[in-house]
Amino acid sequence: MSIPQAIFELAPVLRAKAVSPLEVTRRCLERIEKLNPELNAFITVCAESALAQARAAETEITRGEWRGPLHGVPIALKDLIDTAGIRTTAASALFANRAPTKDAEVVRRLKQAGAVILGKNNLHEFAYGGSSLVSHFGDVHNPWDTSRIAGGSSGGSAAAVAAGMCFAAIGTDTAGSVREPAALCGCVGLKPTYGRASTGGVIPLSWSLDHVGPLTASVADAAIVLQAIAGYDPADITTADVPVADYVSALSGSSKSLRVGVPHAYFYDDIDPEVAAAVEQALAVIKTLVAEIKDVALDVPTNRKLQSAESYAFHAENVAKSPEKYQAETLRRIMSGANVSAQEYILRRREMEEARRSIREIFGNVDLLITPTMPIPAPAIAELKKTPEALRPAELKLLRNTRPFNVWGLPAISVPCGFTQSGLPIGLQIAGPHWREDLVLRLAHAYEQATEWHKRHCGE
Amino acid sequence: MSIPQAIFELAPVLRAKAVSPLEVTRRCLERIEKLNPELNAFITVCAESALAQARAAETEITRGEWRGPLHGVPIALKDLIDTAGIRTTAASALFANRAPTKDAEVVRRLKQAGAVILGKNNLHEFAYGGSSLVSHFGDVHNPWDTSRIAGGSSGGSAAAVAAGMCFAAIGTDTAGSVREPAALCGCVGLKPTYGRASTGGVIPLSWSLDHVGPLTASVADAAIVLQAIAGYDPADITTADVPVADYVSALSGSSKSLRVGVPHAYFYDDIDPEVAAAVEQALAVIKTLVAEIKDVALDVPTNRKLQSAESYAFHAENVAKSPEKYQAETLRRIMSGANVSAQEYILRRREMEEARRSIREIFGNVDLLITPTMPIPAPAIAELKKTPEALRPAELKLLRNTRPFNVWGLPAISVPCGFTQSGLPIGLQIAGPHWREDLVLRLAHAYEQATEWHKRHCGE
Repeated sequence: MSIPQAIFELAPVLRAKAVSPLEVTRRCLERIEKLNPELNAFITVCAESALAQARAAETEITRGEWRGPLHGVPIALKDLIDTAGIRTTAASALFANRAPTKDAEVVRRLKQAGAVILGKNNLHEFAYGGSSLVSHFGDVHNPWDTSRIAGGSSGGSAAAVAAGMCFAAIGTDTAGSVREPAALCGCVGLKPTYGRASTGGVIPLSWSLDHVGPLTASVADAAIVLQAIAGYDPADITTADVPVADYVSALSGSSKSLRVGVPHAYFYDDIDPEVAAAVEQALAVIKTLVAEIKDVALDVPTNRKLQSAESYAFHAENVAKSPEKYQAETLRRIMSGANVSAQEYILRRREMEEARRSIREIFGNVDLLITPTMPIPAPAIAELKKTPEALRPAELKLLRNTRPFNVWGLPAISVPCGFTQSGLPIGLQIAGPHWREDLVLRLAHAYEQATEWHKRHCGE
Repeated sequence: MSIPQAIFELAPVLRAKAVSPLEVTRRCLERIEKLNPELNAFITVCAESALAQARAAETEITRGEWRGPLHGVPIALKDLIDTAGIRTTAASALFANRAPTKDAEVVRRLKQAGAVILGKNNLHEFAYGGSSLVSHFGDVHNPWDTSRIAGGSSGGSAAAVAAGMCFAAIGTDTAGSVREPAALCGCVGLKPTYGRASTGGVIPLSWSLDHVGPLTASVADAAIVLQAIAGYDPADITTADVPVADYVSALSGSSKSLRVGVPHAYFYDDIDPEVAAAVEQALAVIKTLVAEIKDVALDVPTNRKLQSAESYAFHAENVAKSPEKYQAETLRRIMSGANVSAQEYILRRREMEEARRSIREIFGNVDLLITPTMPIPAPAIAELKKTPEALRPAELKLLRNTRPFNVWGLPAISVPCGFTQSGLPIGLQIAGPHWREDLVLRLAHAYEQATEWHKRHCGE
C-alpha cells in the first residue's frame, strides 16, 4: 500500500502492520538521497541507526507492543539538539566535530515514544538570524523554489518536512526560527509556551527566549509530536511543572465559541500585498468557524539586549579562545552582548517578565490572536547575499511578527494559508494564552480542515 | 475582659464583641508610647488612622459583618512597604519624606481582611544587612536585652511583636531578614516560598531573593496572616499563579507521618554551645512528633553577586544623583554591584535557578528540614559598632543559616526554642518544599504546642 505523508494517517497503518517502519524509513532515506543534494536540508543522515531503530519498532509492533502514534515514524532534528554519539554541530565550524555523549531530553522522549531518528537538519550557524546568515555547511534551499531561502534558523527542518524527507522535525524558535521557515516552506510550525518543552541538551541562543517545537505536514501531526515532547524536565530550569493537556483530543473540540483578536496595528503594517490578500481570505474562512473576530491593540515588546547578552554569556569563553571559528557576522552579533551591564540586563529581563505578565490581560477579551506569520514570502538567496548591512532590513522584517511571541512566551503556530502568484507558500500565525496549545491547535486544525490544505498538498 | 496576645485567641473575642477593636488598638498605642522610646521599633505611628480603622471594624463587627480573624487586629509594617499617604522611608535619608500614593499589594490585602494598620517599623537602611548597618532613624533595641540588637533588617517588626506593641508585623526577607530578628527577639518569623506573597509596592533589595512574610507571637498567627497576604498578584512579576492552601486548617493535621532531615554539615558547624544545646533539645521533642529524623547532606548555594547586581540596578540612578543620602557602608555594598557584567549576572542567575530546581530532590527523601535559625544569640550593639571591617564576620555568621533558603526559594519559619543562660531567645528553623507552607506550619505548630511556648511566654 502507498505510504501516507501525514503522521495521523501513517500511524494507524503502521499499527495495523499494513506498512512497516522499515519501509517508511527506507522511503525517507531514498527521498533524502534524491533531494538533499539540491536542498541541503540535512547535515548528517543517520541511515544505519535509523534502520536499526525502524527494525526494533517493527519487532515491537509485530509483537503487539505499539507505543503510540510516533512508533516507527522517522523524525529529524535541528542540528543543535544533542544526540548521543552523533555529531551535533550547530552548523558551526567550532562544533563541526562535536559528538555529545547524551541525548537531549526531547530526543529521549521521542525515542521513548518509538520515533526513528533519521538525521540532523541544517540551520544557520548557532541558530543566529532568520535569513541572511549562513551555515558552515552551506545554504538550505526552499523546496518550492530552490533559488529562495527556506527561512531559519530551522530552515533545514522546514525544507525536510515540506519535501517529504521526514514526517516531522524538531526545531528551535528564539525569535521565529520554527514559524518563519514553516511559513516560507509551506508546512506547520509550532512554538509552544515558554517552558512547555525541555531545552535540556539543546545548544542555546538565548535562555529566556528559546523554545523547542515541531515542524510537521499537518496540525494533527504537530499535536502528536508536541504530546511526546511536552512536559516538565527536572534537569531544565526553563521548563515549568504545569500539567500537559491531551493535544490530539483537543483537535476534535469545537471552535464555535472561540473569540479571535486581530491586532491590525504593527502586525498588519507594511505587508506584501499577496500575503495580505491570503491572510484576509483566511480570516474570512475563520470568521465562519468561530464566535467572533475583532480588532485588538497590543503593546508590542522587543528584546534585543536580552538576547545578545544571553548569547554572549554562552559563547564568551569560545569567542575569546577561537574567534576564527565563528563567521564574521555571527561574531559581530554575539559580541554586541559583551558590553551589556548586569544593571541593563536586569532591567531588560524585568521588562520581559512584565510583558509576559501583562499580555495575559488580552485573553480576558479574546481567546486567540491571528496575524500573518511573515510580512513577505521567501526572499531570493542571491538578494540576501549582499553585504550584511544591506540585509538587515529584510531580516528585521522577516522576524517582525514572530519575535513578540517569544518575548510574551505565548504558544504560536504557523499554518499554510495559500500561495503567491509565483507559487511561494504563505503562513498564518495563530497564538493563544500561556499553556493553551490545545486552543491554538484546535483553531489551526479547524482552519486546515476547512481549507483542506493537507489533502490538497500533502498527498503523494 | 483581658486582651489575649495572640491573634488566634483575640479573633474569637473580637468576633463575639467581648472586646472592641478600638480597645485593642488603644492598648497597642499605649504600649508603643511606653516602650518605643527605648526600643525604637517604630519610625511612624499612625495613631489617628489606626483608631479610625478600628472604629470602622467595630461598626462592621457590631453589624455582624465579621471579615475573618484579622478583622480589627492591629498590625505593623516594615517601613519599606508602601502605604498610601503615609511616608515610607526604607529607614533612609533619601526617602525620609517619601509619601507613596498607593498601598502595597500586601497592605491592600490586609486592609481587605479588616486589619488595622498601626504604623511603620524601623529597619536597616534599605534593608541592607542583618546586623551591623544602621537605620537613618537609629538602632532598634532587643526587648529581651536593650543593649543588644533586635536583628534585621526587619528588627523593628520583630521587636514590636515581641514587646506586644502589635499583634503581627509584615517584614521582608532577602537573606534572613524576617527569620533572623524573629529568632533574636523570640517570636515567630515566616519566609514563604519565593513568589507566594506579592512584593508589589515593596522597596526592593534583590528581586530574585526578596520575600514578604509575617512576624507573629505564635505559629497559628503566622498561618492567619499568611492566609491574608498569600496569592497571585497580576501586577507583580515575582508572584506565581499557584493555588493557596488553607494554612489554618493545616495546623490541625497530624505531624506523625512527617520525615525530618537534619543537614548537620554546614548548618550545625560552629554553633554557639547554648544554641546547639537548645536545638538538640528541640530535636528530641520533634522526634516524638514525627515519623523519622535523619541526617541529610545539602549542596549549599550562595548568591552575593546576584544580590549586589540587582540592588545596584534599583539604586543606580539615585546613587549617581545623591550619593550623600546614603550611609557609607550601604553605598559601598550597593556599589559592589556596579561592575557586574550581564554575562556574570546571567550565569549567577542560572546557578540560582539550578539550585531552586535541584533542592527539590531532597524532598523525595524527607518532608522538612530543621536547622538552628542563627548560629549565635543576639550580639551586643556596642560590639557591632566597631569598624565595618570588624563587623563583617559576625554579619556573615548571622545570616549563614537563613540565606540558602532565599536562594532555594523554600518556605522557612523560625520558631522560639529556648533561651540562653542570660535570657536571650534562640530560634529553630523549619523549612519545607516549595509551596508547602502548610507542612512547615504544621510541624512548627506541633512543636510549639508540645513545648507550650506561647502559653508560657506570650500571656499578659
